[in-house]
Amino acid sequence: MKKYQVVGIGNAIVDVLAHIEEDFLTDNGVEKGIMQLIDTARANELYTAMGPAKEISGGSAANTIAGLAMLKVPTAYVSKIKDDQLGAIFAHDIRAQGAVFETPLAPKGHSDETGRSMILVTPDGERSMNTYLGVSEFLTEDDIDEGMMADTEWLYLEGYRFDGPESHAAFAKAISACRGAGGKVSITLSDPFCVERHRDAFLAMIRADIDLLFCNEHELKSLYQTEDLSVAMTLAAADVETVACTVGERGAYIANGGQEIHAPATETRVEDATGAGDLFASGFFYGLINNRDYLTCGRMGCVAAGEVISHIGARPEADLGALFAAEGLV
Amino acid sequence: MKKYQVVGIGNAIVDVLAHIEEDFLTDNGVEKGIMQLIDTARANELYTAMGPAKEISGGSAANTIAGLAMLKVPTAYVSKIKDDQLGAIFAHDIRAQGAVFETPLAPKGHSDETGRSMILVTPDGERSMNTYLGVSEFLTEDDIDEGMMADTEWLYLEGYRFDGPESHAAFAKAISACRGAGGKVSITLSDPFCVERHRDAFLAMIRADIDLLFCNEHELKSLYQTEDLSVAMTLAAADVETVACTVGERGAYIANGGQEIHAPATETRVEDATGAGDLFASGFFYGLINNRDYLTCGRMGCVAAGEVISHIGARPEADLGALFAAEGLV
Repeated sequence: MKKYQVVGIGNAIVDVLAHIEEDFLTDNGVEKGIMQLIDTARANELYTAMGPAKEISGGSAANTIAGLAMLKVPTAYVSKIKDDQLGAIFAHDIRAQGAVFETPLAPKGHSDETGRSMILVTPDGERSMNTYLGVSEFLTEDDIDEGMMADTEWLYLEGYRFDGPESHAAFAKAISACRGAGGKVSITLSDPFCVERHRDAFLAMIRADIDLLFCNEHELKSLYQTEDLSVAMTLAAADVETVACTVGERGAYIANGGQEIHAPATETRVEDATGAGDLFASGFFYGLINNRDYLTCGRMGCVAAGEVISHIGARPEADLGALFAAEGLV
Repeated sequence: MKKYQVVGIGNAIVDVLAHIEEDFLTDNGVEKGIMQLIDTARANELYTAMGPAKEISGGSAANTIAGLAMLKVPTAYVSKIKDDQLGAIFAHDIRAQGAVFETPLAPKGHSDETGRSMILVTPDGERSMNTYLGVSEFLTEDDIDEGMMADTEWLYLEGYRFDGPESHAAFAKAISACRGAGGKVSITLSDPFCVERHRDAFLAMIRADIDLLFCNEHELKSLYQTEDLSVAMTLAAADVETVACTVGERGAYIANGGQEIHAPATETRVEDATGAGDLFASGFFYGLINNRDYLTCGRMGCVAAGEVISHIGARPEADLGALFAAEGLV
């Protein structure tokens, strides 16, 4: 029995969440529904323009790990924060949820701060993310504890981290240690524009080292440069053992062993779509770890995603285990 | 016409809000329903013990000013924050709401940080506040701009600031400048234990300089050391021109010119009681400034309070003006 069931690596981000009108996006040159990387000057400009906000710990893989920790899955998270107030908030929240988080801090003197993302939520619940990565860009192979990577059943990599050139070596080191000890490796594609930026690197890694691919329909179509999701699913299924692809309010498709399964979404009023894919991964992993069939894994993913989009913030609030039970999944 | 209609002085606080079970309070020695001042060591101890949280700008008078700013009332706020990340969040949120906030910052090198309050919300919606005042304790008379105080119709003082000995001189300077220019002065008693700590100072100020007293039933009973609210109201009405006393789900009593009026509360499911009294003051001021009768002022206070207790966080989210219109108050 390994110490961890899932270890995640990604960008540690504190979300700065505000409800805005559609006009704000066009007036301020924000592209709707995607994640844009921004520098300090743009971050200040947008923050000055936007209304009052709430701060809630986020980060894609961190949200997934928080969901797993809530489900009492032994889990750990790896990312770079600074010894500053936002870093303290981020570290507190993920540890308080039950995850191990021990990555060395960037020191107070570092020229960047803990990462944050201004998430602008329009009345339709869609989120447009403007991310200042801060010190989370500085994750290097020195931050990877090979002992931890060897001691996990699953490694979970956040595609966004492909934006940091130094982190490729960190991923390689983590994968090698995990696989060398018989662990399996998963990745999430994170964002269609992130796929656009790193398509070749993604494909190479997926074909060589990935057992389980998390994505949404837009990311998968971008990866295989097709407008047809079924074509993209077929291509992906040839590249990787298991594909779990979310399709918004239609739920998710799971491809494994030559079969494709559809898991329907739960009906929810979308308050804030932030974290939907992240919590889908939490639920899917929970099923997988407990040796459930792929339909159940997919349904658990959809239930967890449905919880997180029903409120503001990308970390679960209701008891996910109780929600699984209410749906007859456990 | 003065530049400001209301200027508030108080503790600048970022709220750290978490839902907890009742047991957490007893297990961790937290007294329910009141505000406790804590030092850095206790703050760290409690923060480590508590679950994941949300950070939302708060501070009692700051919440009132934010509510007024949302209602397009020309308003300003005075308090001490530090040049740190929580200070930047606090300043952004109150300015983004439309208030002027220009108090000089405590420098990065200051040994304390921007104030914060761990607010533990039990399933009944009640909040137990654990406040680390940080640099907000260091507000002195040097931070009071006499020109601003002379240029406001109403000055609004937060009782909590009586906990800082240096701030008494700041209050005196602000009162003198405001009254000298024909402005009126109001205060909120803040908390029954705060009243206990400073009863004589409160009574002296109220009798000498206060035109409008905001309080809740527990604070007023504590001030006049009686168990009977009607006795306390009578004593208060003899000391001050107008008394606006909230009584929880029963609404508020307003005493003025020998008359006592009851304003009923709006029906709301209490999600988080934080900010109820603060937003009552926003609504009451809005009526007063617009020369409405005291019943309408009280009703506006109750409607604004009802909004803020219907969600987590002590700043209004729904459009207060629209809520007043829906209740036929404007």
